[in-house]
Amino acid sequence: MNKEVILELINQKDFSSLKAKLQKINPVDLAALLEELEERQLLIVFRVLNKEEAAVTFSYMNSSMKKLLIEGLTDKELKEVMDEMFLDDTVDIIEEMPANVVKRILKNTDEETRNSINNMLNYPKDSAGSIMTIEYIHLKKDMCVSEAIERIRTEGIDKETIYTCYVTENRKLIGLVSIKDLLMSKDENKVGDIMETHVIWTYTHEDRENVGKMFVKYDLLAIPVVDTEQCLVGIVTVDDAMDVIEKETTEDMTKMAAMSPSEESYFKMSVFKHAKNRILWLLILMLSATITGNIITQYEGAFSTIPLLVAFIPMLMDTGGNCGSQSSTLIIRGLVLDEIKFKDFFKVIFKEFRISLIVSVILAIVNGLRIFLMYHDFTLAVVVGCSLVCTVIMAKVIGCILPLIAKKCKLDPAIMAAPLITTIVDTFSILVYFNIATLFFKL
Amino acid sequence: MNKEVILELINQKDFSSLKAKLQKINPVDLAALLEELEERQLLIVFRVLNKEEAAVTFSYMNSSMKKLLIEGLTDKELKEVMDEMFLDDTVDIIEEMPANVVKRILKNTDEETRNSINNMLNYPKDSAGSIMTIEYIHLKKDMCVSEAIERIRTEGIDKETIYTCYVTENRKLIGLVSIKDLLMSKDENKVGDIMETHVIWTYTHEDRENVGKMFVKYDLLAIPVVDTEQCLVGIVTVDDAMDVIEKETTEDMTKMAAMSPSEESYFKMSVFKHAKNRILWLLILMLSATITGNIITQYEGAFSTIPLLVAFIPMLMDTGGNCGSQSSTLIIRGLVLDEIKFKDFFKVIFKEFRISLIVSVILAIVNGLRIFLMYHDFTLAVVVGCSLVCTVIMAKVIGCILPLIAKKCKLDPAIMAAPLITTIVDTFSILVYFNIATLFFKL
Repeated sequence: MNKEVILELINQKDFSSLKAKLQKINPVDLAALLEELEERQLLIVFRVLNKEEAAVTFSYMNSSMKKLLIEGLTDKELKEVMDEMFLDDTVDIIEEMPANVVKRILKNTDEETRNSINNMLNYPKDSAGSIMTIEYIHLKKDMCVSEAIERIRTEGIDKETIYTCYVTENRKLIGLVSIKDLLMSKDENKVGDIMETHVIWTYTHEDRENVGKMFVKYDLLAIPVVDTEQCLVGIVTVDDAMDVIEKETTEDMTKMAAMSPSEESYFKMSVFKHAKNRILWLLILMLSATITGNIITQYEGAFSTIPLLVAFIPMLMDTGGNCGSQSSTLIIRGLVLDEIKFKDFFKVIFKEFRISLIVSVILAIVNGLRIFLMYHDFTLAVVVGCSLVCTVIMAKVIGCILPLIAKKCKLDPAIMAAPLITTIVDTFSILVYFNIATLFFKL
Repeated sequence: MNKEVILELINQKDFSSLKAKLQKINPVDLAALLEELEERQLLIVFRVLNKEEAAVTFSYMNSSMKKLLIEGLTDKELKEVMDEMFLDDTVDIIEEMPANVVKRILKNTDEETRNSINNMLNYPKDSAGSIMTIEYIHLKKDMCVSEAIERIRTEGIDKETIYTCYVTENRKLIGLVSIKDLLMSKDENKVGDIMETHVIWTYTHEDRENVGKMFVKYDLLAIPVVDTEQCLVGIVTVDDAMDVIEKETTEDMTKMAAMSPSEESYFKMSVFKHAKNRILWLLILMLSATITGNIITQYEGAFSTIPLLVAFIPMLMDTGGNCGSQSSTLIIRGLVLDEIKFKDFFKVIFKEFRISLIVSVILAIVNGLRIFLMYHDFTLAVVVGCSLVCTVIMAKVIGCILPLIAKKCKLDPAIMAAPLITTIVDTFSILVYFNIATLFFKL
């Protein structure tokens, strides 16, 4: 199925074949396919879909298509789609639409949904509350298993997941029971007797990144979200958690490459916005690099006497930068995965120190040999070798310390990555290099 | 609950309190807690747990603890734990244990399990087959809903997930039905009538990274895995997919920082192994950087006449490297997320070119002003400014081209990240800088 087949069927007005063909496509793929159509065609295809399919496909579309559709649909059609959608998807749409579109969406939802939407919009952008859904199954502990299954069968159709059901008492979360546990139990058992009481849960204000981590750590399908009074207000499902993990990873990588993060995709973001996200750190790092430049000017005497000294600056700077970024990357990732904690401060430094000793000696020997063979100058080989050892050790130690300190200061360790580390290490390596050179060559 | 409480209860031989307390701890947390105990204490605590808990906790332990336990348990105890474990976890354990331990495990499993284990061990390390489980529910299309539910209730206890059931005919996958669909249907409906026939599935030999991506894209809880004859052989569940995504992200980041990837955690890996994973790329990059050094020596005349020229080398190199790594990071991540494809080659280059124009002009103006104010030398400001513009444009274009080419050549784009890009851009920026300087200063 591709764009041409759809267009052909639209032209022939063969809507029953079109409908049959569309039903065979997964909604995610269908949403991608519809992106290629024009507005008029898009509306035709969308109207051919049955309500449920239309709603799921709609939730996977990009913002501009959603906007186009909302504007094109009649109030009645819009209401039908909105009724079929899960509440957390509706909230996502509202968050990305302009005010006039939001107004039309809200006009076409009933009052109860409208209130729920308003509540969910009040949670901070990166919180568990902002990614949760309020459509879950809740049970009472004195229900028997057959009653619980009956409730799931009648209420489940509108719930995002029925696989984990939550047991509440006065709105407080007291346990959970999976549908597997229910089905494996005898009909007459009480929910209260088979429920799991040691529930992994989170607060509405918890950072969504931490919620994502809980899913990976505990292998869960959903996590209940409670308010400050321990009352159950919603659940986060694993599909939303995976989206969060993906977004947070992209954010980390973007920060580690000295850019401001953005949730927009590469092509969706304008050239101007791209430039804006990149220029700040470039300016900071460029101006910081002039410190290294100023240090170099103080050694004019040295490299006027031995111009060859300048030739090793790029190699020293690059190697220092690479060593530092190796260490900082491992530490930043370790901190994200909770494998490394601030209390490991000295353990990490000692480990990096030992690694840097091995690495730097190998690099110094290889480079020393190369210099000696090329220039037959033993002193020069020793000077560059010693500078290399000092630079590598410094780079690795700085590279592991800075992310740990950032973590302690509640900053994102991701900013302490290659670009910043490189700039800092450059300054030190130039200082060390020219000092060692001055010493050995008695300049 | 902490280590001290456990030790206290062991000393008092109060095993019933210990058992009660242990039951309140999530198996993931319990596994972490047990890591702190000595071998003798570990065995005592493990024997207090009930079989099911023991098996789940065991599956979350680290390799060395698992080895310790397997060696400490009697054959009968080991068999009980193995019987309770899901097959994919057993396979994971076998993959990380030494030969003598594996022998003991296999001795304590029945023949059928042993055959399944051997089959699964034959799949390539990074394939869908290696992360799948063969414990799933399969149904026939002529079953009615009540029969299907009955089968789930009797067989489900040993299955890793019962939430998606697979419909097969002559072992071939013909559809799937979620337990939600079953519960929402009338008892007398036929499975064949309510099943979803457009199934998202994968091959046993598919790269596990792609399987992980499918989960994120299609919001699935499980993906069926078929062999080359379309026969259903297993399923991958979302919890394993999340582990894969986490591991693949770490691998990408490690490669992007010029290191060989490893699945061991930071502290588990020895200093020697760390050094080994880091040294290769450092050597390659260090030796490549000498090219830049050699180019510099050819311009000895230039910086002997105007020594100040040397002072701007670090700034130019760093800015070039940072610009290149910004672009390459975005492209590498975009390729991983399938947001960018090779066919976007020229679109990406044109976008990066426009971004680099804006960014480079701003950087050149700021830096030009700084140089003019500090040194009152207009020509120098222009030389450095022009070099900066050329360097930034070049860096961004190279930074976006190389990952795309790597992808086309079936290489991992992650190797075309900051370190390699920086080294390449350095060479060009030095060439451009000294050529512009020679031209303007008529050297």
